[in-house]
Amino acid sequence: MEIRIAQETFSALLGRAQSVIERKSTRAILENILLEAYDGSIRISATDLRIALTQETPCLVGTPGAVAVSARKLHEVVRELPKAEVSVEVKENQWVTVRCGKITFHLPGMPAEDYPSMPPLPDTFLSFPSIVFRRMIEKTLFAASNDESRIFLTGVFLKEWVDEKNEAFLRMVSTDGHRLAMVDRPLPVTPGVFQVGVIIPKKGLGEFRTLLEPLDGDFELAASEGRLYARVANTCLSVTLIDSSFPNYEQVIPSEVKTWVRINRVSLLNALRRVSLLSDEETRTVVMEATEDSVVLTSDNPRFGDAREELEVEYRQSPVRIAFNAGYFLEILRVMDGEDISLGITDGLAPCVVRDAQDARYLSVIMPMRIE
Amino acid sequence: MEIRIAQETFSALLGRAQSVIERKSTRAILENILLEAYDGSIRISATDLRIALTQETPCLVGTPGAVAVSARKLHEVVRELPKAEVSVEVKENQWVTVRCGKITFHLPGMPAEDYPSMPPLPDTFLSFPSIVFRRMIEKTLFAASNDESRIFLTGVFLKEWVDEKNEAFLRMVSTDGHRLAMVDRPLPVTPGVFQVGVIIPKKGLGEFRTLLEPLDGDFELAASEGRLYARVANTCLSVTLIDSSFPNYEQVIPSEVKTWVRINRVSLLNALRRVSLLSDEETRTVVMEATEDSVVLTSDNPRFGDAREELEVEYRQSPVRIAFNAGYFLEILRVMDGEDISLGITDGLAPCVVRDAQDARYLSVIMPMRIE
Repeated sequence: MEIRIAQETFSALLGRAQSVIERKSTRAILENILLEAYDGSIRISATDLRIALTQETPCLVGTPGAVAVSARKLHEVVRELPKAEVSVEVKENQWVTVRCGKITFHLPGMPAEDYPSMPPLPDTFLSFPSIVFRRMIEKTLFAASNDESRIFLTGVFLKEWVDEKNEAFLRMVSTDGHRLAMVDRPLPVTPGVFQVGVIIPKKGLGEFRTLLEPLDGDFELAASEGRLYARVANTCLSVTLIDSSFPNYEQVIPSEVKTWVRINRVSLLNALRRVSLLSDEETRTVVMEATEDSVVLTSDNPRFGDAREELEVEYRQSPVRIAFNAGYFLEILRVMDGEDISLGITDGLAPCVVRDAQDARYLSVIMPMRIE
Repeated sequence: MEIRIAQETFSALLGRAQSVIERKSTRAILENILLEAYDGSIRISATDLRIALTQETPCLVGTPGAVAVSARKLHEVVRELPKAEVSVEVKENQWVTVRCGKITFHLPGMPAEDYPSMPPLPDTFLSFPSIVFRRMIEKTLFAASNDESRIFLTGVFLKEWVDEKNEAFLRMVSTDGHRLAMVDRPLPVTPGVFQVGVIIPKKGLGEFRTLLEPLDGDFELAASEGRLYARVANTCLSVTLIDSSFPNYEQVIPSEVKTWVRINRVSLLNALRRVSLLSDEETRTVVMEATEDSVVLTSDNPRFGDAREELEVEYRQSPVRIAFNAGYFLEILRVMDGEDISLGITDGLAPCVVRDAQDARYLSVIMPMRIE
């Protein structure tokens, strides 16, 4: 194998692959990336066996060929090279020579045949706006669980559905048992592949987010044989789905609440951040009390003191007192976009609904904490 | 005690005090700062018993008084408040009430009398340019040792001296036994207090650097009763000096070297950074070989491969081969300012001198590593 490629291009592709690769793997080959040169292109593949990323770019190919080489070291080396043409050559025993001007590196490679095979591409993809999908991820990913003993909660549920007006939506839902986040966005067509719904693991969905981060237009989405795929330009990312069924989340969402309170989102966010400074470090309990024309937040830490903040709101119902984990509340407020939120409360024990007042298709449910 | 102060002013002063305070102290009072209100000013003092920082600023004083309160919590609270007037009031049992609009915090305080007394100010100070002193710190601090068993090497030696032309200089020297850094800068007068020389501990000197960071003009420097003081506007910082004598560093600096090689500093810095990527992780050994018209850097890592880079230089002597810890070399090159450096080499075993070609008053010595 022998290629020539611009340092900046090569470095960017190698950089992008790093987060997929495990830093310390029990199998040495998994600390590597796969380089394949053919027909005027280089293909760079990275996998941790669950997540797989393939990137292709045109370059000068002197001799086609392939090699596996340390993902981290190759990136460290290429990143530090001057902005000039870099040559990569594979010699006997898989030694990889990286050259740029009067700079030469030799890195020990491994046979390309030892690299895990990358998943085959599905036949059909669905076009979807990158920014919309990325924001859907950001609005749900934080509420997925880290508890590996309930594996079905450690991902985000993705499903298509059609409402009574026959409009199609793509839905993402996540919950860790303490809170739930759910977002719907219109689908141009009903693809069918997400009728049953799939659970995308957290790390993999994070990679989707990163892939879509710099993009404006549409990307291509597919599900096939237990994997979810995203394709954009010459890059393809796929993740193994969680092989389990998602719980009946709809029963967690209260169909009715006693009262809605509308509050300025940023004011509530700032107040919660302040008051939570003196909440219990473990539980992060903040008590919210809605009384006539005001919402009062309080906290109490046996060691560091107590805090109180009052927000002016329109509220005409009988007083309600409810306690939350401030961290859960803050995470939801941070990913909402609207100026105001609507807080649906019933009493101190019933689940509380948080809606973005400017986005009817996003909601969150937070379970209150029991207080005396 | 009762004061009113602008949030931004208060937050900045509290923020500045954080690095002095120990996060976890065996004595609870040392996690606190001391607030003292008197005559239209607030004085904020912080100490870890070795480093002491006192800041004063005018504010509205309703009732004079003093209290000690958690440095970290008070800062967290004040930092999150809106940009408005903040009131601080001390009530019975040292409870501190911080109020801003409809926001109220109560923090448990401790009696001001329990706070360690701050060191008294010396009578005379020496004026010295802030930027010059800060750069002197940056040019030496990295070479001081972390080895607590040789306490006299864990600080930077500060001394005044007069040359044969009767010009006075302030000198900083540091060494950890493997490398040495020494900088001289002209003194307007000969203060006398640094005739013997003092050893400033690393952490304390880092605080001096931070204090001087944003400043342009002169600051005031003093040494008295085992402490070094820096005063600027309404802030005074002092540190306990290391009570030991500094070794005879002058004998480490070669009076003569066999040959000088002039190299572009940034080119050498970049080359070393690259080649060191494949050096042994532990020793970071990079071999430098000066041959006719070139300097070649090489490294070899049993696991990750090898690297080689050639730099063009003017060199007319017989070839020399010398091995270094790349990390030591990189640290020195980073704090030099000139376009070129001069490398004074004798052979593979003798100490190597690194000079900033544009600054005759800064030099570094690096001990080579033995190679076969």
